[in-house]
Amino acid sequence: MSVTLHDVEAAARAIADNVIATPTVHSPKLSDMLGAHIRLKLENLQYTASFKERGALNCLLGLGEADRAAGVIAMSAGNHAQAVARLAGRLDIAATIVMPKNTPFQKVANTEALGATVVLEGNDLAEAAAFADAEVRARGLALIHPYEDPRVIAGQGTVALEMLEAAPDLDTLVVPVGGGGLIAGCIVAAKGVRADIEIVGVQTARCPAMLAALHGTGMDVRTDTLADGIAVKRPGRTTREIVARSGTEIVLVEEGDIESAIMLLAEAEKLVVEGAGAAALAAILAHPDRFAGRRVGAVVSGGNIDPRLLSGVLMRGLVRLGRLVRLRVEIEDLPGRLAQLTRAVGRLGGDIVEVEHRRWFHDVPARKTLVDLLVEVRSPAEAGLLVDGLASEGYEVSRLGTTSEMR
Amino acid sequence: MSVTLHDVEAAARAIADNVIATPTVHSPKLSDMLGAHIRLKLENLQYTASFKERGALNCLLGLGEADRAAGVIAMSAGNHAQAVARLAGRLDIAATIVMPKNTPFQKVANTEALGATVVLEGNDLAEAAAFADAEVRARGLALIHPYEDPRVIAGQGTVALEMLEAAPDLDTLVVPVGGGGLIAGCIVAAKGVRADIEIVGVQTARCPAMLAALHGTGMDVRTDTLADGIAVKRPGRTTREIVARSGTEIVLVEEGDIESAIMLLAEAEKLVVEGAGAAALAAILAHPDRFAGRRVGAVVSGGNIDPRLLSGVLMRGLVRLGRLVRLRVEIEDLPGRLAQLTRAVGRLGGDIVEVEHRRWFHDVPARKTLVDLLVEVRSPAEAGLLVDGLASEGYEVSRLGTTSEMR
Repeated sequence: MSVTLHDVEAAARAIADNVIATPTVHSPKLSDMLGAHIRLKLENLQYTASFKERGALNCLLGLGEADRAAGVIAMSAGNHAQAVARLAGRLDIAATIVMPKNTPFQKVANTEALGATVVLEGNDLAEAAAFADAEVRARGLALIHPYEDPRVIAGQGTVALEMLEAAPDLDTLVVPVGGGGLIAGCIVAAKGVRADIEIVGVQTARCPAMLAALHGTGMDVRTDTLADGIAVKRPGRTTREIVARSGTEIVLVEEGDIESAIMLLAEAEKLVVEGAGAAALAAILAHPDRFAGRRVGAVVSGGNIDPRLLSGVLMRGLVRLGRLVRLRVEIEDLPGRLAQLTRAVGRLGGDIVEVEHRRWFHDVPARKTLVDLLVEVRSPAEAGLLVDGLASEGYEVSRLGTTSEMR
Repeated sequence: MSVTLHDVEAAARAIADNVIATPTVHSPKLSDMLGAHIRLKLENLQYTASFKERGALNCLLGLGEADRAAGVIAMSAGNHAQAVARLAGRLDIAATIVMPKNTPFQKVANTEALGATVVLEGNDLAEAAAFADAEVRARGLALIHPYEDPRVIAGQGTVALEMLEAAPDLDTLVVPVGGGGLIAGCIVAAKGVRADIEIVGVQTARCPAMLAALHGTGMDVRTDTLADGIAVKRPGRTTREIVARSGTEIVLVEEGDIESAIMLLAEAEKLVVEGAGAAALAAILAHPDRFAGRRVGAVVSGGNIDPRLLSGVLMRGLVRLGRLVRLRVEIEDLPGRLAQLTRAVGRLGGDIVEVEHRRWFHDVPARKTLVDLLVEVRSPAEAGLLVDGLASEGYEVSRLGTTSEMR
């Protein structure tokens, strides 16, 4: 069950016509900010917005005639589902995708739109997987596993081949790790081409399953993370062996690091990236000394983030960066006083986003009232100037806490 | 003052080391959706996230020693400011950027961070421009105009050269039009390389200044548009002549088309794009028959959109697509009734985003109350099922209007 550079190179040739050779772009901004030479591999620009198509296609192409005729099955509520659906469709292979019953409709609809039959079974991924396994036995379908398959691993490895072709001078590849298919493939490919290259895996601190497996330790693994694409409770056996044999280091990132990376990729790099897709950059943000001065290639593995979630991350980012602040101001409960206050805020450079009166719950005299303002300012320093300015005009003003009080 | 293909080719060689040859990507999704073969030129991935660097750099490189030593000045509150700031900095030329007094701090800060001196003068762009002109005369600075300069036009034309190199089979280029530098350069370059190529310019219906200038008609031009990057009241004379001579068609897009295009580029293409940068796709969305069956290259000219504005566009997009709906439900004003209602909504597949009680303003019996719910659903069809489901459980429920009532 081993995978070789030869397998990855064969995969690269096999999949070339049906997946996108995504750009590997240099980021001067992130490079300046982080003191390293940063390149990004934009797998979020893949057709279904993740690297998963590479492994899925390589696996589908390896099926015999009988398997193709019988059709394939896969279990996934995420990027692997769309990848198998799209590429089975292109190869005229019938595809059944099993998803847990609570899967968001949008994911079901996206997968069906690509031509697959979606079956909703089981209350979680484990139950859905058990159903898929039963179907494999009962109906003779070929299972397209998301990571535990040498052909899938070889397919994912083409990511690293393309990166080293575009940027042969990379010192380090930073790769998100869930089941381990992507990093295992990248290890085989990159070490095969350049034995001296360093590879760093990234997991979320909430779900460090590969790290736990490597060290044989029990660790809490939770799947409630922004990086749901790498929230895999049990990594593959083959992938774990490849990671272990290569001595690859795994670093952990916190949820806040991932949010910062999503915000930074949107604001500085103009890219929409999902949590797992931002994990590699999050690792460099969280451990800048680890990567300083090096030529680093970060795999932006996917871009499938819900618009409402992205919208929330952007607004929370403004809060975190001190550009959206909440003020509580005491005013007299008389006509015209609110106009006076809001005029003062505008004059002091604040852009009012929301106004809320709080008349009942606070310890103020009955003829006074508290007004909560959500204000966009130009910088944290301007927020301070705004508070000082209001105070100097005679307002009782306090700055409220950040995210915990925000919607 | 004419510009030739030779000038554009010379510009391409001159600027190659200091601007990014951005990717021209095929979009299978947009192609399927629009019945055309769509390629996107990603100038939002430029260092300062717009094509403006090309013209600015070509202009700076054409300065003599004396001009370089004296320094340059430019008037812009937007992408041209950052472009001049960055590239003057790289060439060790002192740069002064004049911006109107009300320019958002973020733009001032971004421009200063690139090494320029920012001067805030004038209450609008016209007054700021007058100040810049006075400085040119008084201090002998060289003016780097955003579009009315043959070297700038030649620089912007490199966009089309790169597109035709990446995709020599394009039938049509779709290019946003403000002052006209980008489209004039693209006309010279593309028609020079391939005389039979079609070029279509795009303006916002709120500011059709080039269209009005071409037809010699008076048209209302307003600058309050999401596409502020192309809200130029008076296009350049040279650029207008080039557009007129080539017989290039200009199509108009509405604000809603631009919002849809920003949303689509974020959700389907994983790209963060500003209003002007989405204008070319907006034109294809608004006039699909015009482009059906053709090989179309759309210039995504820039990505500088404020995170709060992007967040708002995404949420409004969910509303427009019927995936975020507002319901008004009458319930008895008794303990437990709200829990009953919200449980029913969840059971019927709705994800509640906001709850608001409206006790005072509506014509309901005093023992009843109205609850407004903001609910995310999986599709417009599911919204109908949710309303029907609540009604069949005995609730008085109505669906509220869309954007006008949304925050």
